[in-house]
Amino acid sequence: MASARPIAPAQGGSFNLEGYLTERRELVEVSLKEMLARQTIPVARLAEAIRYSLLAGGKRLRPILTLAACDAVGGDREAVLPLACAVEMVHTYSMIHDDLPCMDDDDLRRGRPTNHKVFGEAIATLAGDALLTDAFFVLAESAAYKIPPETVLATVADLAEAAGSGGMVGGQAMDILGEGQKAELVVLERLHRLKTGALFRLAVVGGARLGGASASQLAAFDEYARAFGLAFQIADDLLDVEGSSAEIGKRTGKDQSRGKATYPRLLGVPRSRQTALALARQARDALAAFDARAEPLRALATYAVERKR
Amino acid sequence: MASARPIAPAQGGSFNLEGYLTERRELVEVSLKEMLARQTIPVARLAEAIRYSLLAGGKRLRPILTLAACDAVGGDREAVLPLACAVEMVHTYSMIHDDLPCMDDDDLRRGRPTNHKVFGEAIATLAGDALLTDAFFVLAESAAYKIPPETVLATVADLAEAAGSGGMVGGQAMDILGEGQKAELVVLERLHRLKTGALFRLAVVGGARLGGASASQLAAFDEYARAFGLAFQIADDLLDVEGSSAEIGKRTGKDQSRGKATYPRLLGVPRSRQTALALARQARDALAAFDARAEPLRALATYAVERKR
Repeated sequence: MASARPIAPAQGGSFNLEGYLTERRELVEVSLKEMLARQTIPVARLAEAIRYSLLAGGKRLRPILTLAACDAVGGDREAVLPLACAVEMVHTYSMIHDDLPCMDDDDLRRGRPTNHKVFGEAIATLAGDALLTDAFFVLAESAAYKIPPETVLATVADLAEAAGSGGMVGGQAMDILGEGQKAELVVLERLHRLKTGALFRLAVVGGARLGGASASQLAAFDEYARAFGLAFQIADDLLDVEGSSAEIGKRTGKDQSRGKATYPRLLGVPRSRQTALALARQARDALAAFDARAEPLRALATYAVERKR
Repeated sequence: MASARPIAPAQGGSFNLEGYLTERRELVEVSLKEMLARQTIPVARLAEAIRYSLLAGGKRLRPILTLAACDAVGGDREAVLPLACAVEMVHTYSMIHDDLPCMDDDDLRRGRPTNHKVFGEAIATLAGDALLTDAFFVLAESAAYKIPPETVLATVADLAEAAGSGGMVGGQAMDILGEGQKAELVVLERLHRLKTGALFRLAVVGGARLGGASASQLAAFDEYARAFGLAFQIADDLLDVEGSSAEIGKRTGKDQSRGKATYPRLLGVPRSRQTALALARQARDALAAFDARAEPLRALATYAVERKR
C-alpha cells in the first residue's frame, strides 16, 4: 500500500479542507493503482473497463471518510487503505450497474461516457461484477496488518450487509420499481438510507472499527454517518435541480424528468436545504466528544451539503 | 442451520450415490431456505427474484462437494453449511447474469424461463448482484462455529479470488469476447479453469479447509478439484452436443450454433469422452490416501462425467 504521509494537524475552524481533500484523494488514487497493479486479470478488455471506471477521478469521498474515521481514533492509516479501496470499488461497481440501459440508462458519468457506452453492456456488467467481488478480496488483505482477523471478518460481514439485498442493492431495487411513483418522505428516506446511506455508514464505521474504535466511539460514528449520508443525498437532489451538467459531470434534471421522488419535490427547495444543513450539524454534533483529530470529519459534513458537484 | 443427519458410512464400490445425492440435496435446500428466511429484503419483487433462481432445484453439485470434502476429513458438517450456501449463491448469481440478453441471451434455465424473462433485466441484474454480495455475508457467518476467524477470512479471500476478475468473471469475459473464434485447446482449458473450474475448486478446497484439512490434504483436494472441474466441463460440452433440451433443462446445441469452441469441436466426441474419463480417474486417484469417508467424492467424480444432465 502507499506510504502514509503526515498531514498537518487540524486546527479548529482554520482547517484547510481543500488541501486535505486533495492530499487524501491522491493517497486513495495511489492505493487504487497499486491494488490494480497487483491484480492478474486474464482479459485485457475487462481490465481496461475496470480501470476506466475505477480511475475516472471521482471525489473519493467514501474512502476519504474511511481514512478520516480511522484518523479520528488515532488508528493506523495504512491498515485501513484496503477497506478504503474496497469501499470505492463497491461504489464504482454500483455506478456501472446503475448506469446500464436496463437500469437508469445513463450516457454520462463523471463527465465521460458511461462504461457500457465504451465497452458494451456485457463487459460493463462483468466489470461491475468483478469490482464488487474483488472488493472482498482486497478487504480480506487487511489481515496482513495487525488488525485481529475477527475484526476484519466482522467488517467483511458489514460490507456485504451494506452492499447486499438488505442495503444498496435493495435500495436500487426500490428506486427502479418505484420510479415515477409519488413517494412519501418516510419511503424516500428509507430508499436513500439503503441505496447510498448504508455504504457511507460502512465507510465511516468500518474505518473507525479497523482503526481500533471502542464500542461507544463506534456508536458516535454511526450517528455521524447516518446523518452525513442523508445530508449528502439531499444535497445531491438539490444539485440535480439547480446544477448544470458541466459542473456535475452527469446529466442533471434527470430525477425531475423521470418523475422520481426527490427531497426538493416533496419538501421544496428551501426546506430541503434547511434539512440538509440541520443533518450536517447533527453529524458534526455526534463527534462533539472527539478531539481535533475528528476535524476532517466535521469539515466533511459541512462540505457534503455545500459542495457544488 | 439445518440439523445434520447421520448418513450410512460409505462401503467400497457399493456406495449408493443416488441416495447420497438426494439426501445431500435436501440438506442444501433446507439450509438455503433457512438462510433466505433470515434475510430482510426491503423489496418483495427482489426477494422473489432471488428465491426464483436460488430455489430452482438445481443439482446442488457445488455445495454437495463442499459437504463431501468436509466429511472426507471428518470435519463438522454444520460449520461448512454457510460456505455450501455461499457457493451455491455465487453459482446462481453467475447463471442469472450469464443468461442476460447482453451476455448469452438465454430464455430457459433448469427447465424454466430465465430470471430476466420473469422479472425483467433490471431486477435480474440486481438479484444477481444481491446473491453475490449476500454470499459473503453468509460465509462470514461461519465464524459463529468453532472455526478460527483467520481460516474463515482466508476462505473469504479464496471465494473472492475464485469468483472475481482473476476467476469466474474473467472466464466469462474471455467467453463473451472470444465467442465465434476458433480457440486452441490450451485457451479453452484456461477459459474453463477460470469460468467454472475456480468455483469448483473453491467449493472443494474451502469445504476441506473449514473442515480442518492439513496442508498436504488440501493439496490432494486441490488436485481432485482441478481434474473434477475440467471433467465436468467436458461432460457439459458433450451433453450440449448429444442431449435434448427436455433432459437437460436448458437449450442444447447452443454452443455449436454460436460457433463457440468446445471440446467435441476441437477433439471430436470420442476423444473428448476419453479425456473426461481420464480426468475423472485422475480426480479419484488424487484421493487415494483417504479412507472410506472420501468415497462420496470419488463417486462424484465418476458422476460428473456419466451424468445425463
